[in-house]
Amino acid sequence: MSDRAPKDTESDSAVPAVVIVMGSDSDLPVMKEAGAALDELGVSYQLEILSAHRTPEQAREFASAARERGIKVIIAGAGGAAHLPGVLAAYTTLPVIGVPITTANLGGLDSLLSIVQMPRGVPVATVAINGARNAGILAAQVLALTDADLQEQLITQKRALAEAVIEKANLIKEQGQPC
Amino acid sequence: MSDRAPKDTESDSAVPAVVIVMGSDSDLPVMKEAGAALDELGVSYQLEILSAHRTPEQAREFASAARERGIKVIIAGAGGAAHLPGVLAAYTTLPVIGVPITTANLGGLDSLLSIVQMPRGVPVATVAINGARNAGILAAQVLALTDADLQEQLITQKRALAEAVIEKANLIKEQGQPC
Amino acid sequence: MSDRAPKDTESDSAVPAVVIVMGSDSDLPVMKEAGAALDELGVSYQLEILSAHRTPEQAREFASAARERGIKVIIAGAGGAAHLPGVLAAYTTLPVIGVPITTANLGGLDSLLSIVQMPRGVPVATVAINGARNAGILAAQVLALTDADLQEQLITQKRALAEAVIEKANLIKEQGQPC
Amino acid sequence: MSDRAPKDTESDSAVPAVVIVMGSDSDLPVMKEAGAALDELGVSYQLEILSAHRTPEQAREFASAARERGIKVIIAGAGGAAHLPGVLAAYTTLPVIGVPITTANLGGLDSLLSIVQMPRGVPVATVAINGARNAGILAAQVLALTDADLQEQLITQKRALAEAVIEKANLIKEQGQPC
Amino acid sequence: MSDRAPKDTESDSAVPAVVIVMGSDSDLPVMKEAGAALDELGVSYQLEILSAHRTPEQAREFASAARERGIKVIIAGAGGAAHLPGVLAAYTTLPVIGVPITTANLGGLDSLLSIVQMPRGVPVATVAINGARNAGILAAQVLALTDADLQEQLITQKRALAEAVIEKANLIKEQGQPC
Amino acid sequence: MSDRAPKDTESDSAVPAVVIVMGSDSDLPVMKEAGAALDELGVSYQLEILSAHRTPEQAREFASAARERGIKVIIAGAGGAAHLPGVLAAYTTLPVIGVPITTANLGGLDSLLSIVQMPRGVPVATVAINGARNAGILAAQVLALTDADLQEQLITQKRALAEAVIEKANLIKEQGQPC
Amino acid sequence: MSDRAPKDTESDSAVPAVVIVMGSDSDLPVMKEAGAALDELGVSYQLEILSAHRTPEQAREFASAARERGIKVIIAGAGGAAHLPGVLAAYTTLPVIGVPITTANLGGLDSLLSIVQMPRGVPVATVAINGARNAGILAAQVLALTDADLQEQLITQKRALAEAVIEKANLIKEQGQPC
Amino acid sequence: MSDRAPKDTESDSAVPAVVIVMGSDSDLPVMKEAGAALDELGVSYQLEILSAHRTPEQAREFASAARERGIKVIIAGAGGAAHLPGVLAAYTTLPVIGVPITTANLGGLDSLLSIVQMPRGVPVATVAINGARNAGILAAQVLALTDADLQEQLITQKRALAEAVIEKANLIKEQGQPC
Repeated sequence: MSDRAPKDTESDSAVPAVVIVMGSDSDLPVMKEAGAALDELGVSYQLEILSAHRTPEQAREFASAARERGIKVIIAGAGGAAHLPGVLAAYTTLPVIGVPITTANLGGLDSLLSIVQMPRGVPVATVAINGARNAGILAAQVLALTDADLQEQLITQKRALAEAVIEKANLIKEQGQPC
Repeated sequence: MSDRAPKDTESDSAVPAVVIVMGSDSDLPVMKEAGAALDELGVSYQLEILSAHRTPEQAREFASAARERGIKVIIAGAGGAAHLPGVLAAYTTLPVIGVPITTANLGGLDSLLSIVQMPRGVPVATVAINGARNAGILAAQVLALTDADLQEQLITQKRALAEAVIEKANLIKEQGQPC
Repeated sequence: MSDRAPKDTESDSAVPAVVIVMGSDSDLPVMKEAGAALDELGVSYQLEILSAHRTPEQAREFASAARERGIKVIIAGAGGAAHLPGVLAAYTTLPVIGVPITTANLGGLDSLLSIVQMPRGVPVATVAINGARNAGILAAQVLALTDADLQEQLITQKRALAEAVIEKANLIKEQGQPC
Repeated sequence: MSDRAPKDTESDSAVPAVVIVMGSDSDLPVMKEAGAALDELGVSYQLEILSAHRTPEQAREFASAARERGIKVIIAGAGGAAHLPGVLAAYTTLPVIGVPITTANLGGLDSLLSIVQMPRGVPVATVAINGARNAGILAAQVLALTDADLQEQLITQKRALAEAVIEKANLIKEQGQPC
Repeated sequence: MSDRAPKDTESDSAVPAVVIVMGSDSDLPVMKEAGAALDELGVSYQLEILSAHRTPEQAREFASAARERGIKVIIAGAGGAAHLPGVLAAYTTLPVIGVPITTANLGGLDSLLSIVQMPRGVPVATVAINGARNAGILAAQVLALTDADLQEQLITQKRALAEAVIEKANLIKEQGQPC
Repeated sequence: MSDRAPKDTESDSAVPAVVIVMGSDSDLPVMKEAGAALDELGVSYQLEILSAHRTPEQAREFASAARERGIKVIIAGAGGAAHLPGVLAAYTTLPVIGVPITTANLGGLDSLLSIVQMPRGVPVATVAINGARNAGILAAQVLALTDADLQEQLITQKRALAEAVIEKANLIKEQGQPC
Repeated sequence: MSDRAPKDTESDSAVPAVVIVMGSDSDLPVMKEAGAALDELGVSYQLEILSAHRTPEQAREFASAARERGIKVIIAGAGGAAHLPGVLAAYTTLPVIGVPITTANLGGLDSLLSIVQMPRGVPVATVAINGARNAGILAAQVLALTDADLQEQLITQKRALAEAVIEKANLIKEQGQPC
Repeated sequence: MSDRAPKDTESDSAVPAVVIVMGSDSDLPVMKEAGAALDELGVSYQLEILSAHRTPEQAREFASAARERGIKVIIAGAGGAAHLPGVLAAYTTLPVIGVPITTANLGGLDSLLSIVQMPRGVPVATVAINGARNAGILAAQVLALTDADLQEQLITQKRALAEAVIEKANLIKEQGQPC
């Protein structure tokens, strides 16, 4: 975990810029990719287990206090009747990024619709099914608006992404047709 | 509204047996059918507007206190990312009946999946899309387990339902082919 | 199986409060979770194999007589063109809880729609695809309306559910980032 | 087959070759197209209103007795949790043709899956959503296997169908481009 | 394979009552269940490989001549853009039963819609995804309309189906709760 | 209709480069947009009414002979169990462009899957639901590979498309916020 | 349009904090709700018409330059094969918010999946189908992270949202049951 | 057309007739089937890795220059929010064939809708999910319009396809019923 503090807050170093919330540790294999993305970009974050349905009080307390604590962005993953991102968004004006987690029976279509179809007034920024890595990058994009170093990191990462593709493209041309 | 009090509680007459909750008065045209069903069966109920996303505190307070107040069954209707029934169920051990309300774009499939696909431990008894009338009947079936008069009413209503079909069946036979 | 009898009936001790019905023993791995939930809560139940399509007479006889026998709640699981819960509901005014069982080809979307989309007048309380455990809890919530001990059990169970989440949440904080 | 009825049903013994069943007279606008198709082909039929959920006893009695009465084919239309065709098929070895009726919210996808996804052992011959006319033709195709006149009628009808298309094709060519 | 000939035709013994058509031998594991059902009931049948897209001429010739040859019912299975049943139905007035075969990506929903949604005038009697066994039983139900022995077989089979369920039901009761 | 003949064939002037086929004149409102696109680009075409299910012989004859006649591209529109494009493709090695036509109940999802999910060996080039205009443009793109004038036309049209967007973009900027 | 400039940039007053992009002015009725939300919150924005498919060069130029120009957040709405948000995100590290616009045939499910299912490395923050208002609020939530006045506005707006619900809740209680 | 380069022509060896583009080498197992089909037909092609989202500049440059370079047809495969085919089509008037690649969660329905639902003016010729082989054949069908040898090859291949089916059909008849 990085200790980069967002530039323009007087935030106590213990306060992470991003909190990654999930309802159960069974969501960890998916959700830790959000953390990995933040790690690569040097953004501080914390993992939290909070359930909209099993620990609603804790979820409420967390979301109600998050802004005051200096947290900037909340990432929340959930599957099935995936209420966690929307429930957190109900209690805060911080941006909440929702990660629909795939489900055994409906492939996460249930999770996606439960997260993205929020009513007027309470948005959740939804990424792809199991798209936790992109949730991390999106959080960084938000933070980078006022953090020139992080912005630079994002630009570098984007360039590296392109270069990896170009390298593979060259490889395939050199090797000729692989069939 | 009926004033029949559930038999075996010492409930104050102001406490309805059923509360019908919806997130917005735009859901009233659908949800009032639940009330109509309860009216026909003489079950006391109250309508409430509570939003999982816009008044989460009120929703929490309502659900947390419902059992102590003597409420027996909660009916909750919601559309889109339809979190209300699940959010209420998170705060109570009372039976919560969820009514998925149709949506302009996805016909209520989003509402249905958001309501029915609840995780282990926190059930919502889901009825059909826009099936508020059946939510009312289901609530009455629950209450009738310890209310012989209400049970009788349900049996009578079921019989009437059959008779209405039989009457139409006879009419169509008498009139011959309608084509 | 528990022998707790619902408080306010003169029910013969052989009559279970809940009957869990399924169309085939191939549904048992899913449906027995309903029984496990009832066992944990000390609610008496019985397993039945009845098919809406292969033993319709037996299904009819069971559902027609269930209320008179003193049964309180019926749980029915079915997959595909999942008619069993609706067919039982057609013959009784008892609450019927439907469990859509997943299908190899459509992930249980067919089962879900076949169970939940009941017409006006005949509700089925539908839970999640393969959500048998929640069907058991829902049945207990219904019975607990007039059984203070069971109500207490549900409250305790709900609290335990929260505590298990909180414990995991603490663990993840202590251990730091798991990536 | 001897009881195929002449054109305007002063038929014998009142036993129609085909019975067209629906759960409610609200299905009549769709289902009467099945009757129209049978009328055109001179096949005797009767309309019945029977509900799997509201008059299950009548549905059972009808289906159980249908073969003995001399009925040859049953056509059943239903919408939503569309159990009627499957419930009738449970009680008879006659061919049952199912017509999924469109629904306001899901366009009849729920009806289609509820009718077609029958378990091993109990088939329902399903036609298109709102495809009642084709249900009538299919019933006639079945009866025509042992009714040479009806077979001839079907062949003539099929030819007429082709000719109507060819005529329109010619018209469009003569008139030139219609844009 | 049985050699039972439908009673009231002078059919040449080489002509099967039913032909089971599939587009590729990769469909055989599913489609042979139709044959197994017919074998059990003593109905004669033949397997054919014919593709709507790869051997359209052969498919046309087969379907055009089928009735004259004395074939009674065609069963056709296909997956994906599953045109075979509809293409055969275009060339014959015999009943065509369509079996949607599951697909790797869409679980056979594509196959189902491609088969069942036929236009007015050309029905295909569609069974469940991979429901080949039911296609065989449906074919037998059609043939049994004029074959009392086969009718008897179907009734016996239906009874056996019920008895197998009842036996399992008894077993589960004797053994007590299996959890 | 334009009379531009494809450059490098000795085609008889009566032979259109493109034939636009549909199963019924009810599809004309959608399909004539393909013609309009070809008209704008000066590509010769003809409209045909041919049904895969009602005039299969005519469809076969048309497709079998199309290449020999000098036709270059076939556009075929169909709805529901939309077999026409695939059936034509079965009889020719010409490129076949399929237009899924919307359906009242399933919005054309049935048409789309029936057209696009073709098996290995027999492609259909599928465009959007009701995307007949794009089918016309795609046909022109194919023909333009060996027709420099048509290529020029396509480039001009593409530029005009961009300019229309840019013009609107400018308008919206000049007018300020339209809210 | 508001002229509030984000606090901590030296941004030229002509540079809006948010740009709302759409592919066609036919999307304006939906997308202007994003502008309305920003207006209410005093956030500067600009409307742009840019098409991923018809003016790809302009879209590229806009997105490539947006960050340098001082734009903070891009909102992009699109329908069908809705590539605009993803195409813009490909060229920038700014947060891109995608609004799936409903479609006549598939209700916007195509738009939603085309926007939300972005590959690893290039996120789009997706809101509900036609959820442009929430896109505006989400953009403001992002900007408010470093703009205390805007944060205050969001809090006030959130409170007002709650109060509007509470007011309706009171009204419904005073008026009694509306049925 | 002069520059089609089957293996043994004098065409400039550097310019392939077809370019097969994919966003990542993880798509190669699917996409190389397009190459295999072209190989069998002696059509020259090249594989390219280009990403609409990670190397948008390279994708733009490729598509903008493709026609001038002498490329005739572009095949592009992509999964999820599958923008590559549409993005390439935005920059060229060459025919672009899109191959929706299956996805772990939604089976490629997302890919299919993202590719096929293109707006008016910019077509993508879409084939089946994972239908890369058919994309290759379709490209060859386009090229064969002005290449008599290739046309002959396609006809031969189509005949071989039929013969393989017929051979299997004969085998199954000789062997008798395989059950």
